Amino acid sequence: MATLVVPNQTSPVQDAEALRQAFKGWGADNKAIIAILGHRNVHQRQEIRKAYEELYQEDLIKRLESEISGDFERAMYRWMLEPAERNAVLLNVAIRNGNKDYIVVAEIACVLSAEELLAVRRAYHNRYKRSLEEDVAAYTTGHLRQILIGLVSAFRYEGDEINAKLAQTEANILHEAVKQKKGNYEEVIRILTTRSKTQLLATFNRYRDEHGISISKKLLDQTSDDFQKVLHTAIRCINDHKKYYEKVLRNALKKFGTDEDGLSRVVVTRAEKDLKDIKEVYYKRNSVHLEDEVSKETSGDYKRFILALLGKHD
Amino acid sequence: MATLVVPNQTSPVQDAEALRQAFKGWGADNKAIIAILGHRNVHQRQEIRKAYEELYQEDLIKRLESEISGDFERAMYRWMLEPAERNAVLLNVAIRNGNKDYIVVAEIACVLSAEELLAVRRAYHNRYKRSLEEDVAAYTTGHLRQILIGLVSAFRYEGDEINAKLAQTEANILHEAVKQKKGNYEEVIRILTTRSKTQLLATFNRYRDEHGISISKKLLDQTSDDFQKVLHTAIRCINDHKKYYEKVLRNALKKFGTDEDGLSRVVVTRAEKDLKDIKEVYYKRNSVHLEDEVSKETSGDYKRFILALLGKHD
Repeated sequence: MATLVVPNQTSPVQDAEALRQAFKGWGADNKAIIAILGHRNVHQRQEIRKAYEELYQEDLIKRLESEISGDFERAMYRWMLEPAERNAVLLNVAIRNGNKDYIVVAEIACVLSAEELLAVRRAYHNRYKRSLEEDVAAYTTGHLRQILIGLVSAFRYEGDEINAKLAQTEANILHEAVKQKKGNYEEVIRILTTRSKTQLLATFNRYRDEHGISISKKLLDQTSDDFQKVLHTAIRCINDHKKYYEKVLRNALKKFGTDEDGLSRVVVTRAEKDLKDIKEVYYKRNSVHLEDEVSKETSGDYKRFILALLGKHD
Repeated sequence: MATLVVPNQTSPVQDAEALRQAFKGWGADNKAIIAILGHRNVHQRQEIRKAYEELYQEDLIKRLESEISGDFERAMYRWMLEPAERNAVLLNVAIRNGNKDYIVVAEIACVLSAEELLAVRRAYHNRYKRSLEEDVAAYTTGHLRQILIGLVSAFRYEGDEINAKLAQTEANILHEAVKQKKGNYEEVIRILTTRSKTQLLATFNRYRDEHGISISKKLLDQTSDDFQKVLHTAIRCINDHKKYYEKVLRNALKKFGTDEDGLSRVVVTRAEKDLKDIKEVYYKRNSVHLEDEVSKETSGDYKRFILALLGKHD
């Protein structure tokens, strides 16, 4: 379930006018901006953007960028984009950032549905005049390239058929590859990038039944290079993306200085989807509410905005 | 331009009734079947199928399969499917046929537009309950797998921007790889599977400018294994698919016994698109009309049907 709280009735024109008012004078009224945009769904935000453009011949997103700054600006900018375009931006930044962020590429590619991923590839064309796979390939080589290209280009079957024999065979292939430090990764890549998520879950379950440990835990011993980190992320996102996101949040908040990019990414992309479930997983794992941890670790307008998206009443 | 000749006004219901009439008695009236279905466009054929189903509670395609046989049946079956589904069938047959037909996989993946290829991947899901890339991967290994997966999973950018510097760099990479018998194919695969077709044309042109020979001709010296055959086919289809199809037709008709599958594939898939242009290329290259060669090399109802699709007046 979503955490975003949206009033029953809203008017795009009134919202646009109120935003215009908030921009007036020296320094914007950030509280007013958050009170509006932090409580509108994706459809409403696009309507506000349209109304604002019509009323003032100005792009609302550009104006926001000039009025606010820092982590608050970055989070708001992403929040204002439609999901497919937002993911295209996140991917482009991650690819250009190199090593450190390839796990974000794997995360987005594996969490989205086939049609959602496709919409992102379309948005990437429109925005960057290149294909997503083209950029991924240009920045990587070898196995890392192969798995990333496979993940972002996949158009997975989404029926719920399971081939139990195949799950057994491929659990064995995964086991053989993971056992050796330098395994035969060709087959691992094939399995992870082409099989349906339902089939992969069956395969991961077979693995656990046979070896008494989940494949992602087993892989943790050897996530030494980028390829293995991507592999690990892909498996975790396919296996249980809510648990995966919980860990991203936990790491982001535990970090000295807080990883605002990670925190914003999860909150902004999941607030309208399943952030409530992720919050529950977080509480179960950490015995502390995500909002309380966010309150402690962040500050100012950024904190106010993230808490709004987390559904905390002002 | 298309070769298919369609009357000004047609009625799906009347067509369905006429087909029903043609099926009556022992042995169908194949001339009547061809006179109708050989002169209806994709939309009309789907309407006829619907009308037939409503009138007789029977699937027209299934009925056709039971009434006719051999090459005629196979060509008619493919003709009756919508393009995306037809290509899904062609791909599935090619994948299961193994080595010999991987060039068909490359052909379809490289000739179609990004959105057309995507429609095929959707149709593949619906029909086979698996993804296209999943089947391609299961039947191949190594470089062959890598290039085929890359081609069928590509969602190429289709803008007309050209990066001239990139074309130069990548023409050099292709040259270096092709020069050696066992070149560095990782980069060749990356370039061919991710760049836009417009960019690739610029790269191929740079190659020709620098080396006085086209890359596909150069590659001809070394198309010894499946990977190199696929590579060669991909380049030819991206470079000029009409010339490519001309050669498929030429080979199909030159073969002892004629390669009906190749002939049908080109005629059925291009009759509503650009078969007229392909016919012109054929005449220019062979100094003989495609229809005359088809008349000479085929016979019976199959011949009648192919000639109808080629636009020859009865």
